Amino acid sequence: MDFENIAKAAKAASLEIADINSDLKNRALSDIADALEKEKEQIFEANKKDLKEAEKLVETGEISKSVFNRLKLDNNKMRDMLQGIRDIVKLEDPVNKKLLVRQLDEGLTLYKVSCPIGVLGIIFEARPDVIAQISSLAIKSSNAVILKGGKESINTNKTILDIINKTLDKVAGFPKNVLQQVFSRDDVAQMLKCDKYINLVIPRGGNKLVKFIKENTKIPVLGHADGICHIFVDETADFETAKKVIIDAKTQYPSACNAVETLLIHEKFKADLPQVLLSAGITLVNNPETWAFEHGDTTLAYKTVKNLDEAIEHINTYGSGHTDCIITQNRENAEKFMNKVDSAGVYWNVSTRFADGFRYGFGAEVGISTNKTHARGPVGLEGLTIYKYKLIGAGHIVKDYVDGVKNFHHKDL
Amino acid sequence: MDFENIAKAAKAASLEIADINSDLKNRALSDIADALEKEKEQIFEANKKDLKEAEKLVETGEISKSVFNRLKLDNNKMRDMLQGIRDIVKLEDPVNKKLLVRQLDEGLTLYKVSCPIGVLGIIFEARPDVIAQISSLAIKSSNAVILKGGKESINTNKTILDIINKTLDKVAGFPKNVLQQVFSRDDVAQMLKCDKYINLVIPRGGNKLVKFIKENTKIPVLGHADGICHIFVDETADFETAKKVIIDAKTQYPSACNAVETLLIHEKFKADLPQVLLSAGITLVNNPETWAFEHGDTTLAYKTVKNLDEAIEHINTYGSGHTDCIITQNRENAEKFMNKVDSAGVYWNVSTRFADGFRYGFGAEVGISTNKTHARGPVGLEGLTIYKYKLIGAGHIVKDYVDGVKNFHHKDL
Repeated sequence: MDFENIAKAAKAASLEIADINSDLKNRALSDIADALEKEKEQIFEANKKDLKEAEKLVETGEISKSVFNRLKLDNNKMRDMLQGIRDIVKLEDPVNKKLLVRQLDEGLTLYKVSCPIGVLGIIFEARPDVIAQISSLAIKSSNAVILKGGKESINTNKTILDIINKTLDKVAGFPKNVLQQVFSRDDVAQMLKCDKYINLVIPRGGNKLVKFIKENTKIPVLGHADGICHIFVDETADFETAKKVIIDAKTQYPSACNAVETLLIHEKFKADLPQVLLSAGITLVNNPETWAFEHGDTTLAYKTVKNLDEAIEHINTYGSGHTDCIITQNRENAEKFMNKVDSAGVYWNVSTRFADGFRYGFGAEVGISTNKTHARGPVGLEGLTIYKYKLIGAGHIVKDYVDGVKNFHHKDL
Repeated sequence: MDFENIAKAAKAASLEIADINSDLKNRALSDIADALEKEKEQIFEANKKDLKEAEKLVETGEISKSVFNRLKLDNNKMRDMLQGIRDIVKLEDPVNKKLLVRQLDEGLTLYKVSCPIGVLGIIFEARPDVIAQISSLAIKSSNAVILKGGKESINTNKTILDIINKTLDKVAGFPKNVLQQVFSRDDVAQMLKCDKYINLVIPRGGNKLVKFIKENTKIPVLGHADGICHIFVDETADFETAKKVIIDAKTQYPSACNAVETLLIHEKFKADLPQVLLSAGITLVNNPETWAFEHGDTTLAYKTVKNLDEAIEHINTYGSGHTDCIITQNRENAEKFMNKVDSAGVYWNVSTRFADGFRYGFGAEVGISTNKTHARGPVGLEGLTIYKYKLIGAGHIVKDYVDGVKNFHHKDL
């Protein structure tokens, strides 16, 4: 099938799945988890094929050792993947929720009801567990998806989606074509142009991928390219808190997008603080060229600032709007920081590493967004929904209200 | 000032206005209404200048008589404009609302707080009352704006924004550069490219303008290009209800975007219904070439359909996702229609003309959106906001939770 037809089929499927009930979706998800568990040897076999090809690419330097590791599906990752699907079953259905019920007038009632977005385009790199996770999130939120995985994991992705779709074929009443997969670069190019059928693009991968996608489509993109997170140590900071939080934010998992990249230190601490961080194995660099740079390792940019205002200005200039923290004992400064720093997460005396859908209690994470519209910060299932207005009356006409024969009373129920 | 600097100034202003309180914003709005009222003769004078120029353009056929009429600011429009600003004062402040308060663990609390989007780019055609309305909405929602009006109303727009900005200069504590205006075509081109500083573009004008903007920017656009609204008269429809609703939806204000454009009639009514509509002065056309066409007058496309499924399919194929209605006495069919039709408004036995922020009780309308993300349908002040997450703790670190020393308890407060 060419891309246009795949996209058309996805659109049709999205209209079908919009109207199925929670029980049917949950049954489908449980069956998927069971089927993947039952067929896991087949998945491991496919993964071995991918790994064998990937080994050659590691040798020639075409892919890094860390990409190779992400590609590898072991028993632990398989267990987490299955648990992830079963956890999604337990979550509340994000669609068909009444967000507002308002009587506009006698017998004329407005309902604002959550509903799926439609068709999602998912572009992800070599992490084959993503395909099961994102398919499950799509089913739970009644969206259709077109998936494009990394070419390094093609056998694993094909096998997993095959098992999922064969399972869905056996679930009575579940629509066809909800989950489709494409494989070529040309498919990606067409996906990014296909605003007629695709409503939201979600890239799951490194900065380069996300930047490329954001620059090459007019379809809304949910995600973040950079995670330039800051910690500002204010004049009244508790030294032990500062030390503990910075070390956690930089060293607990340095390659995460919510790890701290730049430390802004009030002059008062410029002598003491760097010392303890160096002792903790952190490499400090003081170079304006790295102020908008994501190190991804234990390197931390730092800068001495005179006051809170300079810190806020620095963050709003060089930050990526992801997550930024102030360490202070001064409530007024903390509040000013949290109101004026224009980021998805603004933290007070807490490690930036908490910026995560599971830690926020969303039960599932679609991604972390630095957008200023739709969804911002860690995004749960709700981010895959929008709403529609249902208006139910008994032959009500606008003329009566324009002529003053009737009046709105707007009573929330 | 060149556009880059205007946009930079707007960004800086947006960070300032994000943190001012409701009282200050409301005082500014009241002062604006008073000042515009006091200086209204000056505004009428400027408007006369524009009208004099516009008259020549009407003569040469460069602008239509209806554009000329929209351009004209009379006492009624002035009164409505002032009332509009004073109504916005009375609305609840849409920012700083706590959307979620969740204790993640002892002493670690997450707040999801509504906040402004940032910088809005507003492009509007020759309706000089828009500039006061949109400026007031921006102030109330703590956003900065860059305004670009139609060249036909340049004197009126300049005079109005001048009075507004002179008033704001006298409001102690109100930031500079919240409201700026640009004038050239080149400014529009630059605005559409300026995704570094502008977070949302709102076009206020005809289809052509909206389509042009949607096709020429990667910045999110709030609006709708087309309003191809449908009414489907189902087999069990009450004939009188059908007649009344269709006549209202087509004739009460035919040029509105929520007026009906296509009528889908169940075979049962194909003989009777057209007759009564013709008698009501509606012109009926049965031509597939007009299935996706917005007439904007009392012309109504119509088509006979066999059943509900054919109607749903037609609407999802040719509609614009604006507002669509079913006339039926059959609850099951009504529910199927409302769930399966993929539009911002899905109505049952009600005129499509109700799709409007004021009629929905939003108090103000930013526009009507057919987007599938962020805001859909009639958009009130809420559509000019997003949210940020504030996380407040006492030196909490992620390592404790990863190591199992502490556990999240996720308790909503």
